[in-house]
Amino acid sequence: MLAEIITIGDEILIGQIVDTNSAFMSKELNKIGVQVYQITSVQDDREHILKALQNAQENADLVLITGGLGPTKDDITKHTLCEFFDDTLVENANVLAHVKSLFIDRLGREPLPANLLQALVPSKAIVLPNQQGTAPGIWLEKENTVFVSMPGVPYEMKQLLIDEVFPRVLKKFERPFIYHKTLLTYGMGESEVAKRIEAWENALPPEIKLAYLPSFGKVRLRLSSKGTNEKVLLQSVNKQMDLVHALLEDIAIGYEDETSIEQRIGTLLVEKGKTLGVAESCTGGAIASLFTEHAGASAYFNGGVIPYHTVLKTTILGVDAELIKKHNVVSIPVSEAMALQATKIFNSDYAIATTGIAGPTKGDGIDEVGTVCIAIATPKGIISEKFSFGTARERVITKAVNKALEMLLKEILKN
Amino acid sequence: MLAEIITIGDEILIGQIVDTNSAFMSKELNKIGVQVYQITSVQDDREHILKALQNAQENADLVLITGGLGPTKDDITKHTLCEFFDDTLVENANVLAHVKSLFIDRLGREPLPANLLQALVPSKAIVLPNQQGTAPGIWLEKENTVFVSMPGVPYEMKQLLIDEVFPRVLKKFERPFIYHKTLLTYGMGESEVAKRIEAWENALPPEIKLAYLPSFGKVRLRLSSKGTNEKVLLQSVNKQMDLVHALLEDIAIGYEDETSIEQRIGTLLVEKGKTLGVAESCTGGAIASLFTEHAGASAYFNGGVIPYHTVLKTTILGVDAELIKKHNVVSIPVSEAMALQATKIFNSDYAIATTGIAGPTKGDGIDEVGTVCIAIATPKGIISEKFSFGTARERVITKAVNKALEMLLKEILKN
Repeated sequence: MLAEIITIGDEILIGQIVDTNSAFMSKELNKIGVQVYQITSVQDDREHILKALQNAQENADLVLITGGLGPTKDDITKHTLCEFFDDTLVENANVLAHVKSLFIDRLGREPLPANLLQALVPSKAIVLPNQQGTAPGIWLEKENTVFVSMPGVPYEMKQLLIDEVFPRVLKKFERPFIYHKTLLTYGMGESEVAKRIEAWENALPPEIKLAYLPSFGKVRLRLSSKGTNEKVLLQSVNKQMDLVHALLEDIAIGYEDETSIEQRIGTLLVEKGKTLGVAESCTGGAIASLFTEHAGASAYFNGGVIPYHTVLKTTILGVDAELIKKHNVVSIPVSEAMALQATKIFNSDYAIATTGIAGPTKGDGIDEVGTVCIAIATPKGIISEKFSFGTARERVITKAVNKALEMLLKEILKN
Repeated sequence: MLAEIITIGDEILIGQIVDTNSAFMSKELNKIGVQVYQITSVQDDREHILKALQNAQENADLVLITGGLGPTKDDITKHTLCEFFDDTLVENANVLAHVKSLFIDRLGREPLPANLLQALVPSKAIVLPNQQGTAPGIWLEKENTVFVSMPGVPYEMKQLLIDEVFPRVLKKFERPFIYHKTLLTYGMGESEVAKRIEAWENALPPEIKLAYLPSFGKVRLRLSSKGTNEKVLLQSVNKQMDLVHALLEDIAIGYEDETSIEQRIGTLLVEKGKTLGVAESCTGGAIASLFTEHAGASAYFNGGVIPYHTVLKTTILGVDAELIKKHNVVSIPVSEAMALQATKIFNSDYAIATTGIAGPTKGDGIDEVGTVCIAIATPKGIISEKFSFGTARERVITKAVNKALEMLLKEILKN
């Protein structure tokens, strides 16, 4: 079965926000066997929304719509849905009671008239309760297509999708199994990887699709397939993945699966009862914030320090000032000393240290923009490497973060 | 004039990546007076791409296409474009020389045959040089619509768009001026804001559009307009913005403009010759990484510490262990001590400190999940506040980051 996602809101089309909702919905839909045919972002405009709904009906069995359900005048989704379904708005007693209770019990004040208007829903709709906010989800059917409208606020949409929409989708539609498996490789270009695995790729069975996803020093290889027999599907994809993994043994670091590389590191550290500290200069907290955005980080992440100015590497981290003077702040010895000191002050088994020039100007270093030294302290010693990551700040930081995580994961897997 | 953006790639439709390219393109297009009518994400599928191209031609004067230009077999954009334009691929000598030089001069090795295929371009195309990679931009015209195909790699797309596409668009199309101005308000709900400014909103001239953008404790109000006379347009939007700003004086903190709140803080600190340090417990480096992702951060950002475990607040930050024992680690006195200590160890004028329970479990604190204390140390003293940010980890962290930046900005503006 096919789904289409329609996001409504000028803020997406003028680039004021990045649409993260669609990626979340697509990923979750795939997990339950629903393929996303298209994602369409349209303006807060009646005619445009009507046209998108019409097109989506022709393409898809399920249309997920987000945005335009707020209490203010620029939000027109509900009225436009009524027009598309030849329906009228009626007050829903449950939503009314929910909105009142949200305001009185949680916020300690009376709702405004505009808030109470959230209780108006199309008369033909199944109303999906929104525990986190005032605008309910709306489920409507037209011929063989289901339309679901949800608020654009990410956490409200997520709760509605998982708790309310999915159980109904599972009940209503026959769905195949969809399976993706992604191999992570580091350190070889896309075309070189393709050349290495050419014979294997040419012999891939037609029901398995291969995609190359290159970015900043890593290439992800995704195998995708769908079918009705889950067991056969898994076997067939896993067999091909084993074959290609063997061809790329030297550059593959594992599978992407459900988890990111930092989550994988976290899981391994917890399993082994080990801990991590970070000393981030040029990456400025980006590595620490990756680890700490996931629940359970405190089980292995002890802490971090961002000695952005050179002097702090001595005063806070305790790196010998003479060492910095002798070798320069962006150097292998300084990165190694930072990593070693980080294990001491954070009392951790492992530590990541980064020092470099993110650019676009040289800062207080003498090295070229893009030069980064990364060191990993482990229970068995310290490894380190010096890199040139180009001249664009965003790219230098991202490459340094990716490389540091890759180096750490490889060390943890060795030990 | 209208543009449509088409992004090609299964990785978007299975939720493996978030489409950030479209937001960048939309924002830049608006700056040169091009309105984005629709953003469409389609699969790596010949028929689907052809259908999207056909639809876009009906809607738009300019169609920007990204993705599917890699050297591997899953990339089919170029062949499909040839089909749509009834064209064939021919070898372009300039691209061929560029690809060879990229490999031999920069990477020190010969290109593979697959890399050389990047020199094949549709015969009717204007070829746009891609300085950063091997796949060139392709400019094709059909009837009155221009189609531009670019690689999906963000930094390659950005360089092509700004350096190659825009100069040609400016020359070819008459464009109006488009102007957006966004007021940032904190601490009042969307419907309350709407009620406060109701009379003003009802009297807004029809050519000015108002949008409410609520998120995590802040509401952004955007005024948008387009027209042929830039001066009249700016005057009219600015006049209305002054009126609404005056109505919201107590909750407005400034304009979004080109810059984010952290960039605004950075600019103000540099102007005043002041510096910043951070001590982030529950925000885990997210605040530091926001500041340091922007160029020039080292001019005001001295450094940060992430004392994720309680004991580190004493050992690294120097917060009195007795104070933590007496008041609990998530408390106003501890947050204030953290901020004060951060100014000392980072030798900074200002400091942000956060301590809280991000969830979903309570960690080493006794407070409820979502409890966060934030303190701001300034040259004139310390302010602090205790918050309850709900139970979802992502939301707790984001709200804490936003609130901390808001508190800091308000203090800087006072001093």
